Amino acid sequence: MNADLQRERAQASFNTEKMTNLLDGGAAKTARRRQLVSIIEKDPTGIFSNDDNYYLHRTDRHVRGLAKAVRLIEVCRKLGIGDECDGHMVASEDWNVLLIALADDLPLYLHWVMFIPNIISLCDDEQQAEWLPLCRDWRMIGCYAQTEIGHGSNVRALETTATFLPESKGGMKGGSFVINSPTITSYKAWPGTLGRTANHAMVIARLIDGDGVDRGVHNFLVPLRSMETHDLLPGVETGDLGPKIGYNTMDNGFASFNNVVIPRRNMAMRFSQVDEQGKYIKKQMSEAASKIAYITMMQVRVLITDSAGKALGKASTIAIRYSAVRRQGFKDSEETAENQILDYRQQQHRLFPLLASSFCFFMTGKVLLKALTSIEHRVLSHQPVNRVEVTDIHASSSALKSYTSMVTADGIEESRKACGGHGFLQASGLPEMFTTYLQNPTVEGDNHMLPQQVIKVLLKLVQAVATQNNKALNDYKPCDSGQLIPSLQAIMGGRKVTCPAQSAEDLQSLSLLRQALCYRAARLLVGAGKLVQDRVEAGRTPEQAWNDALVEMARTSRAYAQFLLLHNFIKGIDEEEKTHAMVGAPEIAVLRDMARMCALYWIEKDLGDFLEDGYMSAQHAGWIRTNVLAALDAIRPNAVALVDSWDYSDFNLKSALGRWDGDVYPALLDYARRDPLNAKSIGPGYDPHLKRLIVDGVGAYTPTTSRL
Amino acid sequence: MNADLQRERAQASFNTEKMTNLLDGGAAKTARRRQLVSIIEKDPTGIFSNDDNYYLHRTDRHVRGLAKAVRLIEVCRKLGIGDECDGHMVASEDWNVLLIALADDLPLYLHWVMFIPNIISLCDDEQQAEWLPLCRDWRMIGCYAQTEIGHGSNVRALETTATFLPESKGGMKGGSFVINSPTITSYKAWPGTLGRTANHAMVIARLIDGDGVDRGVHNFLVPLRSMETHDLLPGVETGDLGPKIGYNTMDNGFASFNNVVIPRRNMAMRFSQVDEQGKYIKKQMSEAASKIAYITMMQVRVLITDSAGKALGKASTIAIRYSAVRRQGFKDSEETAENQILDYRQQQHRLFPLLASSFCFFMTGKVLLKALTSIEHRVLSHQPVNRVEVTDIHASSSALKSYTSMVTADGIEESRKACGGHGFLQASGLPEMFTTYLQNPTVEGDNHMLPQQVIKVLLKLVQAVATQNNKALNDYKPCDSGQLIPSLQAIMGGRKVTCPAQSAEDLQSLSLLRQALCYRAARLLVGAGKLVQDRVEAGRTPEQAWNDALVEMARTSRAYAQFLLLHNFIKGIDEEEKTHAMVGAPEIAVLRDMARMCALYWIEKDLGDFLEDGYMSAQHAGWIRTNVLAALDAIRPNAVALVDSWDYSDFNLKSALGRWDGDVYPALLDYARRDPLNAKSIGPGYDPHLKRLIVDGVGAYTPTTSRL
Repeated sequence: MNADLQRERAQASFNTEKMTNLLDGGAAKTARRRQLVSIIEKDPTGIFSNDDNYYLHRTDRHVRGLAKAVRLIEVCRKLGIGDECDGHMVASEDWNVLLIALADDLPLYLHWVMFIPNIISLCDDEQQAEWLPLCRDWRMIGCYAQTEIGHGSNVRALETTATFLPESKGGMKGGSFVINSPTITSYKAWPGTLGRTANHAMVIARLIDGDGVDRGVHNFLVPLRSMETHDLLPGVETGDLGPKIGYNTMDNGFASFNNVVIPRRNMAMRFSQVDEQGKYIKKQMSEAASKIAYITMMQVRVLITDSAGKALGKASTIAIRYSAVRRQGFKDSEETAENQILDYRQQQHRLFPLLASSFCFFMTGKVLLKALTSIEHRVLSHQPVNRVEVTDIHASSSALKSYTSMVTADGIEESRKACGGHGFLQASGLPEMFTTYLQNPTVEGDNHMLPQQVIKVLLKLVQAVATQNNKALNDYKPCDSGQLIPSLQAIMGGRKVTCPAQSAEDLQSLSLLRQALCYRAARLLVGAGKLVQDRVEAGRTPEQAWNDALVEMARTSRAYAQFLLLHNFIKGIDEEEKTHAMVGAPEIAVLRDMARMCALYWIEKDLGDFLEDGYMSAQHAGWIRTNVLAALDAIRPNAVALVDSWDYSDFNLKSALGRWDGDVYPALLDYARRDPLNAKSIGPGYDPHLKRLIVDGVGAYTPTTSRL
Repeated sequence: MNADLQRERAQASFNTEKMTNLLDGGAAKTARRRQLVSIIEKDPTGIFSNDDNYYLHRTDRHVRGLAKAVRLIEVCRKLGIGDECDGHMVASEDWNVLLIALADDLPLYLHWVMFIPNIISLCDDEQQAEWLPLCRDWRMIGCYAQTEIGHGSNVRALETTATFLPESKGGMKGGSFVINSPTITSYKAWPGTLGRTANHAMVIARLIDGDGVDRGVHNFLVPLRSMETHDLLPGVETGDLGPKIGYNTMDNGFASFNNVVIPRRNMAMRFSQVDEQGKYIKKQMSEAASKIAYITMMQVRVLITDSAGKALGKASTIAIRYSAVRRQGFKDSEETAENQILDYRQQQHRLFPLLASSFCFFMTGKVLLKALTSIEHRVLSHQPVNRVEVTDIHASSSALKSYTSMVTADGIEESRKACGGHGFLQASGLPEMFTTYLQNPTVEGDNHMLPQQVIKVLLKLVQAVATQNNKALNDYKPCDSGQLIPSLQAIMGGRKVTCPAQSAEDLQSLSLLRQALCYRAARLLVGAGKLVQDRVEAGRTPEQAWNDALVEMARTSRAYAQFLLLHNFIKGIDEEEKTHAMVGAPEIAVLRDMARMCALYWIEKDLGDFLEDGYMSAQHAGWIRTNVLAALDAIRPNAVALVDSWDYSDFNLKSALGRWDGDVYPALLDYARRDPLNAKSIGPGYDPHLKRLIVDGVGAYTPTTSRL
């Protein structure tokens, strides 16, 4: 092992294994994860190898991705993974661990992430009984086709049609729907698994009933390809959308439908249906069911927060290990030894907040998932659930999805830049991690749309404060947004609030730092609401006024996300300390160091927000900056051990720079030598091209009179 | 043409063609550029086509890049391009225009960007007479091998050795140097053109003279490959470094040397030499020559600023045209028409400052290049050049390189994200533009190293102010840094300075906005210097104190860059207005709109910097935010015409989204259909992989007793 890494590991103040247990959810989970990882990494067929990934053409990455999927499924069946879910392996916790262990993307992904859950939530019992076993057995492979070329976030504008055709007019027995893509902008675009892989799609289309009435968008199971031959069925065109900035193993696709006829009973009929005569019937969607659908969407957003933490942990592993190994810049005028770049303030300042954020996002994801599960449990067992509790978590999950995915995309790239020249290589592991992660700021609610949803919810709280609606305010008290109430009351009551810190040490208090983030979020929220009002008073329409305030809303959403993150990080740490379930005092101390790092760094970055109304003074600002340096110092001795806690194997990191043993340079050269361009000592472009210059003199100068 | 784009173009308040002339440097230059562009775009061989770029494997991109280079050279010889430079086509202005027109990277690039200029600046007349004709004729193709695996920015730590070997001990007639790579960290790494293409390299190595004394790093022309067969010469290994995040057409390479013997006269001997006995002689480097070398480095940095402007202009072209064409979100509850996304404040706020910055960077690059050329002219004609003038531009070019390359990398990616889902496609043109641009924050002075150079220079000005050295201060007056003097004097004299604006309208004044940026830069500069002093007084060593202040130095360097950019943008616009050489009043007005956009946006982003010491008040902050919205409104009607002014052809943009005619969706589908994955209607992974699941039932569930 590299001597620098060895020394770094020896100086850690806490136990790495315990921290790993915390991240996994316990020692038993750590053991299980490592066991499953071993199954992947030591698979005798070699199909799971990622050694050649970076050199392959996209077509080969896709085909290998399918080979890996088939092998994974084969392995799972053999080992009985998913037997505990009646053979639905994708419902097993083990399945998700195995997916991460693969460290590559599988083209079948949307089958279990979107298609199957959609059948479960929107199809009736008979439909589920017919289709789920086919899905379980990987005969029916599906995707979720909502987005169209011309319609992303505005789902109400979707154009694909599903027109009822009665048996009497040529439809199948019991009636049919005819699926059509009326325009080029109606073509389905972007669904993963659609391009080449799926033989079915859950298509979101406008239902035109037997009376020709447009009933809005509904879900239809549309067969795309023959289950015998994989040939496209009549009227269906699908294709891959082409190479992307990342995520190139996946066949994100497009599809068009030209008079594609499906049975009436292919309409997902749990909450609405069309009878044999074409009459549209909307069933009473139980309140429970509508809440569950809502909760599912929020769970997806909270899971993005959790994944963001994992991604930052992985990127930090590479950047911090490499920064401990890489030396550049003489220590002194003797010019004999060079500094570890991890000792440069600039390097610490760009990397340690990301490392701290990885643990913060994880903890916040954990606390919020627990809250969501509690709500889901109460809904399913028909216990009372406060509506405010649900909308509160809606605001939280939206703000967090937006914020954490943006910070993580930027953070992976910052980690890459922090690796200097060698970070530019695919062999660093960071380019593909970054470009593939980049889908997250765009999907599942564009990060420039979500803030509006956050503000809509929070402005109701502002209104409750404004009208002094104590009953409503009581409902908010147990919610995260309820934390804003005292600040909102002060701001809206015209009372001046200042940060109570009297010294730099005061500004080390997590409680005080949380309060600062809370106050700032409240102030920006009031400001955003007021801006809308002001613009209306200045003569703008309500839509224009809302539009003018979008920039402020984004600011507010980010501020609220930072408050939520610190608040829940502290909460999660306090809970761990109480139970001491997985970690002890040294680990708790390090977690609090990281919470402080996050808070101080966020405040430092947006100091203007805290100075603008005098909440903080110039003196406070100076203390914040000093404390940021102190926070960097606190993390420094533990940086390598902290990334070790994320327990990413060399197989998983796919990085010459992030290797456990720190032996980076031979690995880097090995990756280089294996490039196909180096297969022969004379490169593939010499003959015929270069040769024409060097030997044949095609570029030789002879003065000429012919001029342009 | 798309109706939205047509309407946008019709509403512009200025003349696009005149703006194009400004960017080109005159109508004649515009005409010449278009003529040269046509030569590329209409080349009958089709070798220059970029249509398939995104689908090719890296190996094919590289080989095609070489084919394009040969064709380009062939075309230039035929048309006599470069005849005006005695056949040195790479010295011709036309050459650079043609390169941009290609819209692809050529593996030979470093031959003319680094290798040839290095011969000219460091080799003596006899060496130049021998090698330059071979370079001119493309027989000798070279690269510049400085960076090593273990040594990037710290050039003094380079390890490659060049040891003198006298004839008497087995060297060639007249003596030799023996080149060696003693360790793995000494391997040359990263030079472009090195991996597979070059047959020579200018190798930077430690000179060990005849007495075994290490004379530090010098330049040596090392043959790598036979000029007859391209075989590697004895002791030389070269290879490509492997796939990268971008710039994959180029063969950035590695090289190792094992007792590679070269003639003594392959040492670049203009400023130092070694005689036949191995005695090292340092010639008096004329002051002029040392200044010219310095100026060359600064020109490279200023050119990066200019290129940054061009890159932002190109990215903006795609994002703004697409944002005018893309509609999403119903205008009202009628739900019939959707808004152009260019009308959303969020979209304007993320795109218009980038567009404005593209013109700003261009203008600043132009003003600074003019200043550098003036200095260069005076040096070459032995006129007096003030040392301060030179170090001032050193600080400027370093601060600007650092700032503009970071802003541009982020800006291209922001433009990509602004295109929503379709921005994820290579077919948007933005992914490759972004990932290839990413080398700029790292090369030519890492962006985290340069700020230190900036501060070192500027602290001398601070010292001159502190000691009230009027003579020195006079030298600074004509320099950009001299603008800081009044603010420095006020700050260091303990006088409180506040922003004089009394209304939102006052804060529209470019002069006042410039003054604000100037004051802030001065304040941060004094703060950075003071921080170093404070840390020393607190017991840190000078090195530790400097290290602690690195974060503040980076802040200061960014602030200084923003001041320089606005200052020179205003200066450039004022000069244009005086001469009316290329643009008239309407264009001048639009340029000033963009200067205002830059200044207001930069201040808004870092409002804390202006509030911290009370220079601005909360009221000023509110006016700034209001004015940002007004600046967006001012640019809105001209946005499309402004990107049109950059005059990027569809060939050059390589983008379905940025097409001149706005007909984006058919183009997008066309790009998709041409992906090799779609060659057959059944994708390449079906047989054997998917089939094993769907048909053979490899994944079918049968309850099993064997468990893991």
